[in-house]
Order: sequence, then C-alpha cells, then structure tokens
Amino acid sequence: MPDWGSHLSEMRRRAPLVHNITNYVAMNVMANVLLAAGASPAMLHAVEEAAEFTPLAAALTINIGTPSAPWVEGMQASARAAREAGIPWVLDPVAVGATAFRRAAVARLLDHAPAAIRGNASEILALAGMAARGKGADSADPVAAAEDAARALAQRTGAVVAVTGPVDFVTDGPRGWRVANGHPTMPRVTALGCSLTGLVGAFLAGAVDRAQATVAALAYFGLAGERAGAVAAGPGSFQVALLDALAAITPEDLAAGARVEPA
Amino acid sequence: MPDWGSHLSEMRRRAPLVHNITNYVAMNVMANVLLAAGASPAMLHAVEEAAEFTPLAAALTINIGTPSAPWVEGMQASARAAREAGIPWVLDPVAVGATAFRRAAVARLLDHAPAAIRGNASEILALAGMAARGKGADSADPVAAAEDAARALAQRTGAVVAVTGPVDFVTDGPRGWRVANGHPTMPRVTALGCSLTGLVGAFLAGAVDRAQATVAALAYFGLAGERAGAVAAGPGSFQVALLDALAAITPEDLAAGARVEPA
Amino acid sequence: MPDWGSHLSEMRRRAPLVHNITNYVAMNVMANVLLAAGASPAMLHAVEEAAEFTPLAAALTINIGTPSAPWVEGMQASARAAREAGIPWVLDPVAVGATAFRRAAVARLLDHAPAAIRGNASEILALAGMAARGKGADSADPVAAAEDAARALAQRTGAVVAVTGPVDFVTDGPRGWRVANGHPTMPRVTALGCSLTGLVGAFLAGAVDRAQATVAALAYFGLAGERAGAVAAGPGSFQVALLDALAAITPEDLAAGARVEPA
Repeated sequence: MPDWGSHLSEMRRRAPLVHNITNYVAMNVMANVLLAAGASPAMLHAVEEAAEFTPLAAALTINIGTPSAPWVEGMQASARAAREAGIPWVLDPVAVGATAFRRAAVARLLDHAPAAIRGNASEILALAGMAARGKGADSADPVAAAEDAARALAQRTGAVVAVTGPVDFVTDGPRGWRVANGHPTMPRVTALGCSLTGLVGAFLAGAVDRAQATVAALAYFGLAGERAGAVAAGPGSFQVALLDALAAITPEDLAAGARVEPA
Repeated sequence: MPDWGSHLSEMRRRAPLVHNITNYVAMNVMANVLLAAGASPAMLHAVEEAAEFTPLAAALTINIGTPSAPWVEGMQASARAAREAGIPWVLDPVAVGATAFRRAAVARLLDHAPAAIRGNASEILALAGMAARGKGADSADPVAAAEDAARALAQRTGAVVAVTGPVDFVTDGPRGWRVANGHPTMPRVTALGCSLTGLVGAFLAGAVDRAQATVAALAYFGLAGERAGAVAAGPGSFQVALLDALAAITPEDLAAGARVEPA
Repeated sequence: MPDWGSHLSEMRRRAPLVHNITNYVAMNVMANVLLAAGASPAMLHAVEEAAEFTPLAAALTINIGTPSAPWVEGMQASARAAREAGIPWVLDPVAVGATAFRRAAVARLLDHAPAAIRGNASEILALAGMAARGKGADSADPVAAAEDAARALAQRTGAVVAVTGPVDFVTDGPRGWRVANGHPTMPRVTALGCSLTGLVGAFLAGAVDRAQATVAALAYFGLAGERAGAVAAGPGSFQVALLDALAAITPEDLAAGARVEPA
C-alpha cells in the first residue's frame, strides 16, 4: 500500500492556495478546515473576478449547495479558467438530484473536466444518471450501492470519484479503494462533507497520483474525526476537536492510522 | 399540562427535512442546531429552485435578516409553495421595523399564511403595527410589552406567535404560555434566535397542536441553554455546549425540565 | 502612555450598534466577536436598505472579501451615508491586490473618507500603490515593510491605518504605535482579521482619539488571543477560547496587558 502520510506532508510543504466557490453554510468551516490542515483558503465567486483569480490558486473547488444564477456564472468561469490553466478542480454536486436548476448547473460544469468529484451515494447515483432517492444534502442510499455508478462516472468523465459515507469509496475507474476512517458523529455536524471537498482540492494540488491523493485526504479527515469522537461530548465539541485534530495529526499518524483497502 | 417531551420524541421520530431560507450569519449555526436536535436541514434560496424544493420538505422557515431583492423573490416563491402544499412555515421577521424594504418584504410574506411567527418583542410589536423602538436584531422592548400585540397578531394572521426573550411568550390568540427556560448568555451568541426558528419549524412538521409544538421547541432550546450555561466559561464555550446539550437532552429531560405556565 | 483599558470601558458603556458589510466567511465569527466584546452587531448589505440603516448605527465596517456587483453598490451607499451622517467607518481591503474588480471597488470606497483602514501588510502595500506580492487573504509581506506605506496612506486619506501581523503597526500619519499582543495560532483561524475590523469599528464609535482607539482595539484582540493560546489545544479550541476571553477581559486587564510602544 502507498504511504498515505506522504500526501499530507507534501500538501503541507506546498501549503497550496485553494480557491473555493462553496455554499454559505460551509464557507467558514471549510476555511477553518483548510487552515487547520495547513493549506491556504480563498473564497470568492463573482463572475467579475473569479476567472481572474483562479489561476493564482493551486486548486479550485466548486460546491453547488446554495446556488443562484450569478453564482453559477462565476462557477462556470472559474471551472473554465482552471481547465485552461491546468489547475485541478473538484466538483461537489450537493443535492444534485433535487432540482432541475442544480442538474443544469452541474451538467455545464462537467464540460470543464473536473479532476475529482466528491459526493454522497445519492449524489453520485444522481450524477451517474441512475435513479436516486436523495432529498436534501443527506444521503438516502448506502455507499456500496453507488460503487458501480462511481466507476462508470469516473470512466466517463476522467475524474477521480469519491463516494463518502460510513466507509468511503474512491475510484479512478480501473482502480478502487475503500476508506474506513471516520466517526458516527460526523453526519451530525453540518458542512463536513463540503469541507472535505476543500481538503481534496488541497491534496490534489501538485499531486502526481490524483486518486491516491484523494484517498489520503479522505483517510486524513476520517482519522481526525476518530480523534475528535474520542474526546467530544456531542456535535458541538466534536467540531472543535476535529479542527484541533486536523492540525495535530502528523504524516506519521496518518501512515499508521489510515484504514484503506483496495476495492 | 401537556407532556412537552413527547413533542421532542415525535420530532426525532420524524427527523423532518426542514427547508430554511435564512440570513448569512445564521446559516451554519442553524444547520448545526437542527442536526444536533435530530432534524435534517436544507438551505437554498434561489427563485430558480426554491419553490421546486419546498414541497420535498416537511417544514419551511424564512428569516429576513440579510435580505436582498433576489432572495425576497425566492422567499415569496417558497412561502407560496408551502401554503399550496400544506407545509407549515415559520416567519422570522428580523429587525422588521428598521427599514421600508423589510416591512415590504414581510407584508408580502404574510399573504402566504405562516403557521408560526417568532421574533423578539420589538419585532412582534413592529409586525403588529404598534410603535417599536427596535434598532437592530436586539430587542429594545421587554417581552411583556408585546403580549397583547402577539395575541392580536395571532388572531389576525392565524399563526402561532412566539415572542422570545428572558421569558418567552407563545400564543395562538385564545391560548397563551410563558416559557421560562433559558440562560443570560444566549443573547451574547449570535444567531441563536434565528436557529430557534429552525427548531420551531422542525417541531411543527406533522404536529397536531402547533401552538404546543412551538412551546415545546422553545422550552427545549431554553433547557439546552441552561445546561450550556452551567458548564460554559463564556460565549464561545457556551455555543459549543449548547449543541452538545441539544443532542443529549432526552424527551424525559424535557418533560422534567420545561418551565412552562399558561398565560 | 494612554490608559488603553479606558477605551474598552468606554466602548462597553456605549454598547455601539455596528453595521457590518462583510464577507460570507466572516459574518458569524465577526458577530460573535462583537457580542462577546460588548457591542451590538448588525449585518445587512442590500442597496435597497443599506443607506437607510447605516445612520441608525454608531459605526460602519466594510470588508470586500467576497464581493459581487450588487454588494459593491450596497457598500458604496452605506459608505456615503456614513460620511454624510458623520459616522466613522472602517475599510478592510481584503486581497485588494488580487483582482481589478477589487481595486475598482476600493478606489470608489476611498472617496467616502474612511475613519480607519485595517489590512495585512500586502493589502496596505497594494492600497498604497506600491508593489505587493499578496495572493489571497494571507499576507506575503512582513508588517515592517508596510510602515512607510501605511504612514503615506494615512496622510493621503486622513484615515487611521492599521497593519496587522505578528506585531501590528498603527498610524495616523504623524503618530505611530506598534502593538505586540497576539498569538501564533491566530492566522490558523479564519476571519479573525475581518472580525478585528468589526472591533475597530466598535472602538471608533464615539472615540475622541481615533488612532488611540484603534490601538486599543488591536491590543484587546491580541490580548484575548494570548489568553486563548494559553489554554487551546489547536485552532478549534482556540476560536472558542478567544470568544470567552473577549468577554472576560476587563479594562484593568487590558491596561495591564497591552504591549504597545510608540513607533
């Protein structure tokens, strides 16, 4: 197995500037997650400046959690700029199955060749064009049900696809991994999935093997969740402890604690 | 007196999806409050999708804290969709007395028959058309001064009206209750009133007696505040402990700890 | 040296309503910082109401972190209203060097005579028209490199200029101070600089000596950071402890703990 910890040390060495166009609920948490991990977050979205800014960053992430027409234009402009500049970008298709507006926005974004897509099982199933029962941002489908869809989506788009849940699944089409790190309190804290998307962006910046970098980001975040769960008294203290753990975990901790299996 | 704890167990059994169109300050806290309590939050606001999404939810809440013209259109569309689908919705008229723009937005929203209205005394007085001295989101009027206005507003609109403060007042017109749960640190943490509006939405979803469900939501939130205040060292640790308490409180705790009197 | 603690007691006595037009990442933290300190925050931005609301406040702060065209119009309207009403306002030129859109927005805002400008060294250098290497919201230049630029900017604009970093520098042109309070974890938590801008606004409300009030706000925030750093286990618990410390610090604590030198 790869040394997952090396992806964390590489990310920290680069301290990448990550441009995030994300939803209002996640912005603060995502910025704090990136700072705690050792990356440098920037949030801006307006079409007047998004495409000018993106090439200054080492990675871009786009999350459609609270979209509106002007934001979708900014997302498009940044995704295009990232593709043209060769900057990896990550798509987080929040609740893509819920409305026609989201489906249309994501369909346009897929034209710009995301390096990775991270979602829950319902979102990945919806994105892959299969029937999904997802209502909001919470998944109604188990991760295992989305593995085939994830592989197909990876092959169709060329993106690494990460399906997150109790046990995550990551694939680039031919290869696949399951990541068992995590804690049951994580779904009780808002915007952790969105924040993980930011971390995937940070790990992708400059990575040679994007699928392995994505796996490392998921294992790192899940390991931080395990540490937080060991000390937290509830979802409030969990969020606090998660940020502390993200800052405290070393590459050696991650190498020892990652629970990853090929799939 | 009713068994207030039964409203909490009913809410948790339903785990309602609550669609919230709220202000930027409150979004993250409100989502975390709903998740800690056992509900499922969704935040989205764009007129392109709001009305399509609302009927998927079990309740809707609308808060005018940081309004703009496009958001007001989304609020209108969702309020209309909620009324047409028979989904209860809660209005939070933040600082409605402060500007003409807010008064106009709220006047239009009132056409769509909110199931409940939650505000501080200044906001309820302004809404009831009486003189108010409220400047920002903090109340300049005591709760008791708004009781008559609240009863009149409830009778005029058909909504349950909740006036929150050191002792809350809830009325559906004929009936009234005072809820003494709470803690003095609560006004020192931002967006707790806004978050409580989300909880009222969660408790209203599927409730038979909407006034009693509102009372239960207020007592539950205030009880969590009491628990947080017993362990917190200041407003920062208070917010953390509040989320932990919301997750930890059982229906039995609420039945024993609710301090509610008819009024 | 002045009694820096008196600025804190004066601010708490006035409990000023501070109107903030800030970025999405900072909104919640900034509101909590102002509440913990003893001020009353209000966040609203729409051009339909911003100028109507600003004169109700005792201070205004404007932060261009996540700008868009409609927000820039609201910022302009409020800055104009503040100038006309004689209300002090603070400019936070986040990443002003990064895009043409930001530079244009800030150039227009400078027409409205800010009472203070707070930024990191890269931002102040960019604002002063000198070469800057700033990429995102994090500074690529040391504070000392921006002292001359800050003095020139203060003299050109009439504003107090605060350059924040490991040791802050404050100047009104002729006078200058260095503020050594602070903690290395502060840059690992998002939006603390933005939140400090809110505090500067609160301290400016009604202050006779605006430069000294700005120094006091910076020393107070830095002292809270020192207290937080003494108990925190990482950036998550740091943010919680910072809010607790802001509420706990007395004017006497600030008088004793401020580490300020003329410069």
